[in-house]
Amino acid sequence: MNSYQNLSMSEQKAEYGAVRARFEAFKSRGLKLNIARGVPSKEQLDLSQRVLTDLTAPEDYFADGVDTRSYGLSDGLPCAKAFFAELASAPAENVIVGGNSSLNMMYDAVMRTMLFGIGGCEPLVKQGRLKWICVVPGYDRHFAICEQMGIEMVTVPMLADGPDMDAVEELVRDPQVKGIWCTPKYSNPDGTTYSDAVVRRMAGLKPAARDFRVYWDNAYCIHDVYGEGDRLAPIYPLAVEQGNPDLVLQFMSTSKISFPGAGVAALAASDRNIQIIKNRLKYQTIGYDKLNQYRHVKFYKDVDGLKNYMRLHRNILGPKFKIVLYEFEHKLGGYNIARWSTPKGGYFINLDVLPGTAKRVWELCRDAGVTLTQAGATYPYGVDPEDKNLRIAPSYPPVDELLTATKLLCLCVKIAAVEKLLEDDKEEE
Amino acid sequence: MNSYQNLSMSEQKAEYGAVRARFEAFKSRGLKLNIARGVPSKEQLDLSQRVLTDLTAPEDYFADGVDTRSYGLSDGLPCAKAFFAELASAPAENVIVGGNSSLNMMYDAVMRTMLFGIGGCEPLVKQGRLKWICVVPGYDRHFAICEQMGIEMVTVPMLADGPDMDAVEELVRDPQVKGIWCTPKYSNPDGTTYSDAVVRRMAGLKPAARDFRVYWDNAYCIHDVYGEGDRLAPIYPLAVEQGNPDLVLQFMSTSKISFPGAGVAALAASDRNIQIIKNRLKYQTIGYDKLNQYRHVKFYKDVDGLKNYMRLHRNILGPKFKIVLYEFEHKLGGYNIARWSTPKGGYFINLDVLPGTAKRVWELCRDAGVTLTQAGATYPYGVDPEDKNLRIAPSYPPVDELLTATKLLCLCVKIAAVEKLLEDDKEEE
Repeated sequence: MNSYQNLSMSEQKAEYGAVRARFEAFKSRGLKLNIARGVPSKEQLDLSQRVLTDLTAPEDYFADGVDTRSYGLSDGLPCAKAFFAELASAPAENVIVGGNSSLNMMYDAVMRTMLFGIGGCEPLVKQGRLKWICVVPGYDRHFAICEQMGIEMVTVPMLADGPDMDAVEELVRDPQVKGIWCTPKYSNPDGTTYSDAVVRRMAGLKPAARDFRVYWDNAYCIHDVYGEGDRLAPIYPLAVEQGNPDLVLQFMSTSKISFPGAGVAALAASDRNIQIIKNRLKYQTIGYDKLNQYRHVKFYKDVDGLKNYMRLHRNILGPKFKIVLYEFEHKLGGYNIARWSTPKGGYFINLDVLPGTAKRVWELCRDAGVTLTQAGATYPYGVDPEDKNLRIAPSYPPVDELLTATKLLCLCVKIAAVEKLLEDDKEEE
Repeated sequence: MNSYQNLSMSEQKAEYGAVRARFEAFKSRGLKLNIARGVPSKEQLDLSQRVLTDLTAPEDYFADGVDTRSYGLSDGLPCAKAFFAELASAPAENVIVGGNSSLNMMYDAVMRTMLFGIGGCEPLVKQGRLKWICVVPGYDRHFAICEQMGIEMVTVPMLADGPDMDAVEELVRDPQVKGIWCTPKYSNPDGTTYSDAVVRRMAGLKPAARDFRVYWDNAYCIHDVYGEGDRLAPIYPLAVEQGNPDLVLQFMSTSKISFPGAGVAALAASDRNIQIIKNRLKYQTIGYDKLNQYRHVKFYKDVDGLKNYMRLHRNILGPKFKIVLYEFEHKLGGYNIARWSTPKGGYFINLDVLPGTAKRVWELCRDAGVTLTQAGATYPYGVDPEDKNLRIAPSYPPVDELLTATKLLCLCVKIAAVEKLLEDDKEEE
């Protein structure tokens, strides 16, 4: 094996012909495969079926002294608050349990800060130019919220142990910077887990803006795929310890534990933040679906129960991650045209292709019937400045389809790389 | 029986002594009763138990070609859209099915207009002073949204056939007036159903503000309690007919059909409004709980199924409404100290007591262990200018408790009335 760059132009042309022929063979199969979004497979969803069936008689729906089917408890069922509190390493009274979407809870948190302010500050809509720190590559739906709200996104690179904290500490000196999106464990898309040092520095930030908040989207907090998995230091105690309790808003959900569309989400924050949020939330809803909250707590019981249960997910997801990584290693290794992450959990594998070819790889895959996450989606405004990042989501397709999709993807990476190198050669002439 | 006003002062004092003695007897019983909120009773909730238990195997959760447990379809499951479309007299593509709370959908609709505008207009936050029409008496949670958003509330009286439309038509000539709250059928709290003429005029409004919207909270659309019930003209066809499709946002929910805390809510609106809302909603959530949407459609099937089912509710609610009305008639009739509504459906009976005594009645009830909706709650900012309106919610308590609470309430109305009259006599001296 030789790096593509070391091939002569005629060797590159020969390679192009070879991979292109294999690509055409794939294309003629009329594939329709999807490795675009981090969606659990049907097999995974079936694992939680008893969440939906264990409660039957009307009396089963009584919990914490209330009929969970009725109104009330806008901050969540007490047993559900306790459940998420354990996950968040925060007291139960510092938790609000919501509906089926942590994205919705994050959105609403930003929306309330826009309209009503936080930390005793003016509403963000009255503060003129607003900025937000986005670690890149990152999660497109985080970025989209900023885009919709008209908040300018400033990027910080993801390093091996988390965001570049020197850059973050520098940026928060600007009073117009109001927040940062973090997916601290098995980060979307690169799978990085923040080191203890990074979590400590994040929890110790001294932003110029009193209404700056760390949006800690702990979406994959117990979503290990291999072995012991990574360990993430709990941020809330570290924030409290550094006199910074109000800095962090933590978000969690069971979207990738029970059901993506019918799970339970929660947020955890300081006394003061929770008090402010509760006082505002009561205008928006009389309460979230406590019955669904109770179904979940009843089935998973506690974090230990959850951890045991997540082994079943791992048994399904682990082999899928391995298939993709094996193919990458064997089809792309050594050519110097791609690098990829090897995460121990989460839902994604990050694939960096030859700069300037990510969009082309995406197009080629599309043309042959394989849907990838849109190239650029992992960057604010959908613009990857180097056009090199692709996010691979191995969870949804069955193993045989995943294998086919990955083989095709590897071919497309090669085609796009040779095309680019040949083009560069031409320009040099 | 004689009107209290015609009694001599000594007769008033004698009456005061008599009712006060009976009040003290109630008080000594240490009651703890609640007729404050429109909450269905346990008996009613049990009627819908099969919503929660009919779907069991994983395959049961496939509907409209999708696994309802998974992500997607942010505007709702197609069969759920069709279900609510029938209720709203609008096409299914003009419906968005949401989570468990229509209040939340109304709040979000206002919030989006505040932040992003509607009808091609600037966001409301950028438009300076904002006003909203509130029909009084009305629903406290509607008013609270305006209060939180800093929107000034201007009131319009409820007449026998709906809001005073002359006043509404006059007010919408002001470009700062951006909306009106309506509960068009069995209005909260007075039980009024808007007449065909009122619905037609509402649908034909020509507001100065292009971003004015009618918030049509059809919370009690099929919630008859007696006989045939009232008929409400469908507003959407009338708006279309008058060239006004974008004027109305309709809201519905099953909160008082299945479960207050775990039902399904929906909104219906014009093509243009729906397109705007969908384009914004996708930033807030990947989708609502489609599984719960499907549970509901599967059980109720369609509007005919729903109507049949609502008879079961009527069997429970009808007698409760009768108890309250019978007591009012027999204990308060003829004294000229109270007037009340006799709604054919909904969740409330409106009680107008002697002006200047509503708060006192509320206090007396509280002191004897009966919780009423806070006096004033049916007016913006919690201020009833005449201090006369009370909202009675008969649905929640068992029949015997409801009877006791109503008897006590009638006594309190009398006590407060005589106190007031004696006070007035004193002032005249």
